[in-house]
Amino acid sequence: MEVSAERIAQHLKGEIIGDPNVKVNMVAKIETGKPNNVCILHNPKYQNYLLTSNAGIVVVSRNLLPEQKVKPTLIVMEDAHSAFAMLLDLLNTIKKSQKKGHSLLSYRAWSSKIGKKVYIGRFSYIGSKSKVGNGCQIHPQVYIGSDVTIGENCILYPGVKIYDGCKVGNNCILHANVVIGSDGFGFAPVEDGSYKKIPQTGNVVLEDDVEIGSNTVVDRAAMGSTIVRRGVKLDNLIQIAHNVEIGEDTVIAAQTGIAGSTKVGKNCMFGGQVGIAGHIVIGDGTKINAKSGIQGNVKSELGQKGLMGIPAIQMTQYLKCYAKFRHLADPEKK
Amino acid sequence: MEVSAERIAQHLKGEIIGDPNVKVNMVAKIETGKPNNVCILHNPKYQNYLLTSNAGIVVVSRNLLPEQKVKPTLIVMEDAHSAFAMLLDLLNTIKKSQKKGHSLLSYRAWSSKIGKKVYIGRFSYIGSKSKVGNGCQIHPQVYIGSDVTIGENCILYPGVKIYDGCKVGNNCILHANVVIGSDGFGFAPVEDGSYKKIPQTGNVVLEDDVEIGSNTVVDRAAMGSTIVRRGVKLDNLIQIAHNVEIGEDTVIAAQTGIAGSTKVGKNCMFGGQVGIAGHIVIGDGTKINAKSGIQGNVKSELGQKGLMGIPAIQMTQYLKCYAKFRHLADPEKK
Amino acid sequence: MEVSAERIAQHLKGEIIGDPNVKVNMVAKIETGKPNNVCILHNPKYQNYLLTSNAGIVVVSRNLLPEQKVKPTLIVMEDAHSAFAMLLDLLNTIKKSQKKGHSLLSYRAWSSKIGKKVYIGRFSYIGSKSKVGNGCQIHPQVYIGSDVTIGENCILYPGVKIYDGCKVGNNCILHANVVIGSDGFGFAPVEDGSYKKIPQTGNVVLEDDVEIGSNTVVDRAAMGSTIVRRGVKLDNLIQIAHNVEIGEDTVIAAQTGIAGSTKVGKNCMFGGQVGIAGHIVIGDGTKINAKSGIQGNVKSELGQKGLMGIPAIQMTQYLKCYAKFRHLADPEKK
Repeated sequence: MEVSAERIAQHLKGEIIGDPNVKVNMVAKIETGKPNNVCILHNPKYQNYLLTSNAGIVVVSRNLLPEQKVKPTLIVMEDAHSAFAMLLDLLNTIKKSQKKGHSLLSYRAWSSKIGKKVYIGRFSYIGSKSKVGNGCQIHPQVYIGSDVTIGENCILYPGVKIYDGCKVGNNCILHANVVIGSDGFGFAPVEDGSYKKIPQTGNVVLEDDVEIGSNTVVDRAAMGSTIVRRGVKLDNLIQIAHNVEIGEDTVIAAQTGIAGSTKVGKNCMFGGQVGIAGHIVIGDGTKINAKSGIQGNVKSELGQKGLMGIPAIQMTQYLKCYAKFRHLADPEKK
Repeated sequence: MEVSAERIAQHLKGEIIGDPNVKVNMVAKIETGKPNNVCILHNPKYQNYLLTSNAGIVVVSRNLLPEQKVKPTLIVMEDAHSAFAMLLDLLNTIKKSQKKGHSLLSYRAWSSKIGKKVYIGRFSYIGSKSKVGNGCQIHPQVYIGSDVTIGENCILYPGVKIYDGCKVGNNCILHANVVIGSDGFGFAPVEDGSYKKIPQTGNVVLEDDVEIGSNTVVDRAAMGSTIVRRGVKLDNLIQIAHNVEIGEDTVIAAQTGIAGSTKVGKNCMFGGQVGIAGHIVIGDGTKINAKSGIQGNVKSELGQKGLMGIPAIQMTQYLKCYAKFRHLADPEKK
Repeated sequence: MEVSAERIAQHLKGEIIGDPNVKVNMVAKIETGKPNNVCILHNPKYQNYLLTSNAGIVVVSRNLLPEQKVKPTLIVMEDAHSAFAMLLDLLNTIKKSQKKGHSLLSYRAWSSKIGKKVYIGRFSYIGSKSKVGNGCQIHPQVYIGSDVTIGENCILYPGVKIYDGCKVGNNCILHANVVIGSDGFGFAPVEDGSYKKIPQTGNVVLEDDVEIGSNTVVDRAAMGSTIVRRGVKLDNLIQIAHNVEIGEDTVIAAQTGIAGSTKVGKNCMFGGQVGIAGHIVIGDGTKINAKSGIQGNVKSELGQKGLMGIPAIQMTQYLKCYAKFRHLADPEKK
């Protein structure tokens, strides 16, 4: 995962001053740069940090080049401002390109179909009739059940578990210990007070470009499919119940939960620890503040203004009312 | 996991019209049926969907049989209404019956005892002196520590981890990445401001017919046992702390947390993201609304009416007060 | 995990009355002691329980020795009060000392460096150039990526996943299915409404003496490091986002979430299900009540008094205001 000054200079089309063989593995701020870091200096305000920096490499705008000799290898650009995104992409590409081959200590059913340039890590399991598309990275200790379809160029990090019959689109990223397709929480009450399990016979469909954070769970539908549409981004430790549908490009922060059969629109943004009741409809573009609870349908016109509270109301109204709440116990004025 | 029209017809005791070899793997609504789906038509309101349906199979009440020829294979019953539960059971049985044998790529200690008709999947681990009862399905990548007892006919999905000394009853289902028996969160403050770990020497006992959702954690007791009684159903991502006891047939939705040493009664129902303080007692039949926080003991008589709020009060009262709260910032009427 | 009366007596420097070969595996209360339990009797109030106890062993203060013969083997101390902590330590030591050796069914890269007296369990994976210090216990099904450093005497329970480049200090305990170093939740909006992933090129640094509960996630920094300082204790199912820093000896209960780039001071105590916004600073010694939400910076002077509410205010104030809130809907008095 290390990259040399020479390679960075090529990538940025910059000029090297100093040792071209210095290697780094991480971007850092110039104030805190260490020998294995590359830093960026384009703001004159931070110019002095360069003189004492311990960073291995500093990418610097030409107008901020120091007069004296400095410890880091320098890579000079006309304007180093653009270097940041380029560096992150470079480091990311290097990181991703490392793994290949099928480990002999993995298992794949004879009836499974594995595409080209697929990495299958040790102790991973691919069940019968499942398909894994070209360019996928199946890291160690992943479980893919039977009749599962994974599109192209997906990354499944260690410990991901995908139950039978689920479908994952192209370019999806599932982080460690994500669970896709476990049984929805469905039980029918019995007369004696106990519960009988309602079989969950559906599946989960993740469309293209979905990213799901560590330890998040998406349950399979009772019948039909739980659907996560193109471009949805889910953070860590989220609960998506059975038969939920989440619209395109909706982004949801950590520890939020969505109860069964609810339909969330597209381009929504939910904060962390939000709770959404089952069997409701949330309009496109709805924004929900962290920790809020949604009990009923939300129309798009209202939702776009932002919601807050338990149960949630318009955010500006909630904050005004809460400001009053904070003084409910004040001694009364005369 | 596929099933033919012929087998479905046998199971439902229905009559086939069309190709008996068509295979399906999922129940779907008639409005959205695809070639690998079986749908049910018993409501005249949906009769027209049959004419254009792409479903592989439709189970239809005799009085709704179409006059013209249709694409799906039909299975005719006197009243198709009862077909739904029967179909789910059939599909579920087929799904469950697939796995058998002990993988050579699993590990079981010589001193462990494995019952009859047990499936042990690849990369699973069964520690010394542990017992697994007849008919259990231990899916791949499961960890069962030492001195663990698993009853009969349990299903442990991929990635389940059970620490040493825990006990699981009969007919339990543990979903992917569930953790049973990790250390309770117990630390004693030291004078210098740091904390010393208090050894957690107890275990977890799950009684019969318990189902636990993906990524839920049940911690072991400091001493004695954390107990989950017969018939309890826990959803995904729930936290059950050390020394908690949960009464029979209590049902808890996702992301709820129960702090240490609390005793929850039987037949309770908790919504999602509920938080319950430690060292308290919650009476039988208590209902708690999603996202509520319980700070003190709840008597059964009060709890059965439903609780809401942080800290929780009676739900009807909370909602009335919240209705007033929403208007706290309104301009005052004269 | 069993220990004999003889060994316990040696450890406690007590005197045995009865069978020295009786073995137990757990400490329990004298009221509920079973044959495989050791109980302690130092309080005269519980003296009668000894006469009917089914415990395998009872450690008893000399002044409470019964006159008649009892079923349990007795271990007599001058004052049995101190036996509790000593017993827990003994049982804990025995439990921990069991595992050794490197399983042939594990994988370690040739370029990794493994210290002395390290246990590597089955189906575990240690990537290239990673280092594991002396005395570590790497349980089965653990994943350690490339360029990871693990200090001495750490315990990684089954299913722990550590991404590339992360660092773990000495004496750390990571419980089952913990994820360290998954990508932070960072996306840049694109004009068409979709999102482009921002590469997360940093890492996670856990300092010494950190304990992390099951299924908790600590995300890697976008650049630089997410830092968990010495002595921090995190409970289960917690979310620590990218670039967060948590100060020494801070203790956080289950299901709490901390958003990106927030800096938490030392010696803080957070209850369960707390949510903390991103890019803020929480002062040393801050106490936050369960289920509260923190939206802005918290100064130490205020934080030490305790916070509660969404958004959180001083706890005493919140409770007073909430007491008024509860009566908002009361019929008005005249």
